Amino acid sequence: MDQTLEARGVDVGSYMRELGVAARAAARALARATTESKNRALRAMAAEIRAQAAQLLEANRADVDHARAQGRDAAFVDRLTLSDTAIEQMAAGLEQVAGLPDPIGVITDRQRRPTGIEVGRMRVPLGVIGIIYESRPNVTADAAGLCLKAGNACILRGGSEALHSNQAIAACVRAGLRAAGLPETAVQVVETADRAAVGALITMNEYVDIIVPRGGKALIERLMRESRIPMIKHLDGICHVYVDDRADLDMAVRIADNAKTQRYGTCNTMETLLVAESIAAAFLPRIAEIYRAKGVEMHGDDATRRLVPEAKPATDADYGTEWLAPVVSVRVVAGLDAAIDHIERFGSKHTDAIVTEDASHAQRFLREVDSASVMVNASTRFADGYEYGLGAEIGISNDKLHARGPVGLEGLTSQKFIVLGHGEVRG
Amino acid sequence: MDQTLEARGVDVGSYMRELGVAARAAARALARATTESKNRALRAMAAEIRAQAAQLLEANRADVDHARAQGRDAAFVDRLTLSDTAIEQMAAGLEQVAGLPDPIGVITDRQRRPTGIEVGRMRVPLGVIGIIYESRPNVTADAAGLCLKAGNACILRGGSEALHSNQAIAACVRAGLRAAGLPETAVQVVETADRAAVGALITMNEYVDIIVPRGGKALIERLMRESRIPMIKHLDGICHVYVDDRADLDMAVRIADNAKTQRYGTCNTMETLLVAESIAAAFLPRIAEIYRAKGVEMHGDDATRRLVPEAKPATDADYGTEWLAPVVSVRVVAGLDAAIDHIERFGSKHTDAIVTEDASHAQRFLREVDSASVMVNASTRFADGYEYGLGAEIGISNDKLHARGPVGLEGLTSQKFIVLGHGEVRG
Repeated sequence: MDQTLEARGVDVGSYMRELGVAARAAARALARATTESKNRALRAMAAEIRAQAAQLLEANRADVDHARAQGRDAAFVDRLTLSDTAIEQMAAGLEQVAGLPDPIGVITDRQRRPTGIEVGRMRVPLGVIGIIYESRPNVTADAAGLCLKAGNACILRGGSEALHSNQAIAACVRAGLRAAGLPETAVQVVETADRAAVGALITMNEYVDIIVPRGGKALIERLMRESRIPMIKHLDGICHVYVDDRADLDMAVRIADNAKTQRYGTCNTMETLLVAESIAAAFLPRIAEIYRAKGVEMHGDDATRRLVPEAKPATDADYGTEWLAPVVSVRVVAGLDAAIDHIERFGSKHTDAIVTEDASHAQRFLREVDSASVMVNASTRFADGYEYGLGAEIGISNDKLHARGPVGLEGLTSQKFIVLGHGEVRG
Repeated sequence: MDQTLEARGVDVGSYMRELGVAARAAARALARATTESKNRALRAMAAEIRAQAAQLLEANRADVDHARAQGRDAAFVDRLTLSDTAIEQMAAGLEQVAGLPDPIGVITDRQRRPTGIEVGRMRVPLGVIGIIYESRPNVTADAAGLCLKAGNACILRGGSEALHSNQAIAACVRAGLRAAGLPETAVQVVETADRAAVGALITMNEYVDIIVPRGGKALIERLMRESRIPMIKHLDGICHVYVDDRADLDMAVRIADNAKTQRYGTCNTMETLLVAESIAAAFLPRIAEIYRAKGVEMHGDDATRRLVPEAKPATDADYGTEWLAPVVSVRVVAGLDAAIDHIERFGSKHTDAIVTEDASHAQRFLREVDSASVMVNASTRFADGYEYGLGAEIGISNDKLHARGPVGLEGLTSQKFIVLGHGEVRG
């Protein structure tokens, strides 16, 4: 692909600006596209993906063979590999997005003012979305579908290892856009493996309104340092469950088990378990027995280790670690205030839960814990766009501005004020 | 004040971080403050401002004398000067904010999911707000009141020329906080004239969640280059009125007059008038007569100048200029599409209006013009937090993320997800 750029005598920066100009123009067309035409495009994309399944598998095989030849590990190859099931999931996902309500053009908060003007808020697209992702090629279809439904053009920059797969999927996406009479430049895949393309994408703020990075911590950290464009992102998920002195113990065991062990590698997995000291003796041995049986390594403070002797000593660094593994940090705290202090100090503002039967403790935890999702008597694993009923998820944000928590279609939109007058002027 | 810092052996960076640490701690207390205690503080601030009127005038006199001695112009001195009326307005403004509904803790979008969990969104404070403003001391009271009501701590950095005035007002604000049992560090005024304080404030993103700059374009441009913290801001207001071929001409004259001439120096004043060519001959001579009578200088394209011979030739630079003066750019366009194209190219995404009796033209303008406020048949001068019924205004944002358009209390808050469970775990 770099050869293509070279043959054209175009550097990466100029190439990316070309994409930016085209995306900006496409965004204007998408902003006025009807719901019906957007849905038609989404269903045509799904049909094309199913029709081209053999070609997608073939393109993917080239990427997988190359990754294996490069000595990539099994987990990497697994994320990269498309199967028949994965292809059907992409197609079904696009159809599901077609079935979601169109957020664009919805007017809310309409009121008539004493001057006679009517003021309201209209939901509108953001414009151009840049998506930066790593080895999973399904993101090409998933992200394109969500951006389109929300009326945005997008520029997709997947991992260079998935370039053939991404281009094959992008061809299906373009076919769908064409079938619905929408501009093909509404979805553009960056067709160079040059890493300078990412640097260009995250700094061309005249063409790109928001960046959504999907990937590991190293990617997010780099983008946070270098991006000049706002991002929907989270760096990590150091999620807590606090078992209050007023907890139902059976429920606390069930939630502490599920939040840690239902899946180890997800950002909404509990990484630290906080326990009120008055119930630690009743609770900790019970949950420790479960963790022991499931092979979860415990790191605890002194009070924990008196009750669970096999726990390793926990350090401050442990409490600041997102394990993403069968490891859990445990700490006995004096009570609610100490739990909130711990979360303030060590948390990542992602998702934190309290287990309690005390309504005022629950209320204080909800109000005072400054995280994107705050839960009472539920597993942190519920922090997810589908579980929250958003219908889809483009990512999760730990930031407080714009979208916060799981981000669905609404996070890819903005609201502007509209004023409907009858000739009113200001006196 | 710098002497104070020096005497303490503290550099500006350390001093600002001290303010940041204190603000962060105060923010936690404010996040759980009751509506009643916040309102009590606001009313006590108002009472103290009235009680200390003589002292405020005296402190202000020192600033005004100094500004005059420095040869500051009359407009500058005017903005700096506190009068009895200005003091009463500050007090009344704080009482008005006390009367606004408290946004914090409000739960919306509550729904029960198939899993049994209830998901909702709770409105919460942003945390710590940095306000950077120039010579108007009243901002000290106005901004402090809005930040407090929305549950935020704030760090206020006014112009060094208003330092005595700002400190005197801040003393009243602190007295109000004390009277309500809230931490005095909830509102801190930067007590050094060293400009490095601004540089520190806009980069200490561990302590400050959002910056609200209030000032001229030079200030905003500097902050846009240097800030590492998101801002609620607009650089300029190049607002348009488009008189459509289906406009009611009397209404168009009334709106084009008011949008330009009701006040020249405000960001929502019309700077460019666009006119559909089919009605230019009927419309332009009428509005030109009014502008002529009011001393408004016209800059027009060739088509305009054929109808209004005294208009100067308009350049592209004119169309990109926020005049803030009795000057208007005028352009005859083919119709709606050309008007939208012009606004896309030259506008600043602030406020744009169409005058038309055609519902589909109005609808297209509303959907396709990508500005914070888009109006049909009303003067751009209505783009204002009070006119929109927000009850207050901390600033106006031209950005699409977070708050857009006039920003009231809601723009100083965030929404987090809350999950109310009954022991649910994820399957």
